[in-house]
Amino acid sequence: MTVQERAVRTRGVLVWVAAREFDELGYEGARLARICESAAVSMGALTFHFGSKAALADAVEKEGGSITKALVERLLDNHGSELDAVFGLTVGLAGLLETDVVVRSSVRLGRERSRGGGRWVDVWIPAVRELLLRAYEGGQLRQAEASPQTVADLVVYLLVGAESQIRAGAAAPAGAPGSASDQLERIWRLALRGVAAESA
Amino acid sequence: MTVQERAVRTRGVLVWVAAREFDELGYEGARLARICESAAVSMGALTFHFGSKAALADAVEKEGGSITKALVERLLDNHGSELDAVFGLTVGLAGLLETDVVVRSSVRLGRERSRGGGRWVDVWIPAVRELLLRAYEGGQLRQAEASPQTVADLVVYLLVGAESQIRAGAAAPAGAPGSASDQLERIWRLALRGVAAESA
Repeated sequence: MTVQERAVRTRGVLVWVAAREFDELGYEGARLARICESAAVSMGALTFHFGSKAALADAVEKEGGSITKALVERLLDNHGSELDAVFGLTVGLAGLLETDVVVRSSVRLGRERSRGGGRWVDVWIPAVRELLLRAYEGGQLRQAEASPQTVADLVVYLLVGAESQIRAGAAAPAGAPGSASDQLERIWRLALRGVAAESA
Repeated sequence: MTVQERAVRTRGVLVWVAAREFDELGYEGARLARICESAAVSMGALTFHFGSKAALADAVEKEGGSITKALVERLLDNHGSELDAVFGLTVGLAGLLETDVVVRSSVRLGRERSRGGGRWVDVWIPAVRELLLRAYEGGQLRQAEASPQTVADLVVYLLVGAESQIRAGAAAPAGAPGSASDQLERIWRLALRGVAAESA
């Protein structure tokens, strides 16, 4: 392994270990000394890659944002209806929150830091809005109640709720029945056709 | 004002001031000295009423639980359908989260303290489940997707999401368009009849 390769690997390990620390303890609570220890990296090496705690948090937010954007782009390439794409995006984003500590950490950092990369929702909500506008224009949305704005609000509430349930340990682990993405998939199927019976 | 009346008033002020402190800073972050200062009460008076921080947090949780239970009981007395009652309960609980710092604080304390009064959701979810079972038996729920369990999950996600949006300052203030209870009311109307157009 060349010096260059080793540096790239060390940087990657630091971002992942830092993500775990920020995810659990928040920006204020995270300690660089503990990150060094968990990553088996000296403080000198850490400060070589990241000049400050803020720089390390920036890197976590940037990587979490990139992973999220990659999912959004992959799902936009799907060939179903726009409404199907919003459904897939909601469930896929919940899956990321469950399984990817870098994404989950970037969500927390985006909320806690006023000068960071911004809120996670802003990474994907433009795509959701665009899809819902097209679904609306294509006649896929129910008249009256199902305005693109209200459907977008539903998606935001479900994902904010999913993050909160995952953090509280109230949802089952990823992959198991009752996990956040499993619950969101069932809720979306429900929301598509409605809670109420035709006659009610 | 008698000594007795004064004691009752001081106790009430302490609970409210403590709720504000716990709501903002959490159980660990809250400081009894700051609560005394905000309430204009001596530390001696505080410890007369509440022997410890835990006892003060217990009192906040208990009062938040009582306020929530009172809302649940009032809404159960309504004379609409069971589904209407669940709708009203969802919006009413979001309103409490917006406007009542004692309730909001008790939600946070219930999540943070392992030996406190328990999770807020457990105060109202039995009533929601009972209503949904009756709605199901009465044919008010759409077949297939709308199982009582999935509708209950929707309610939990919406309220957990509402709390999170309120804390993040992402929702408009109570009473204004775009407030959490306003958004939840629109989302519920949407969920009742479904997102998708009949033809989609």
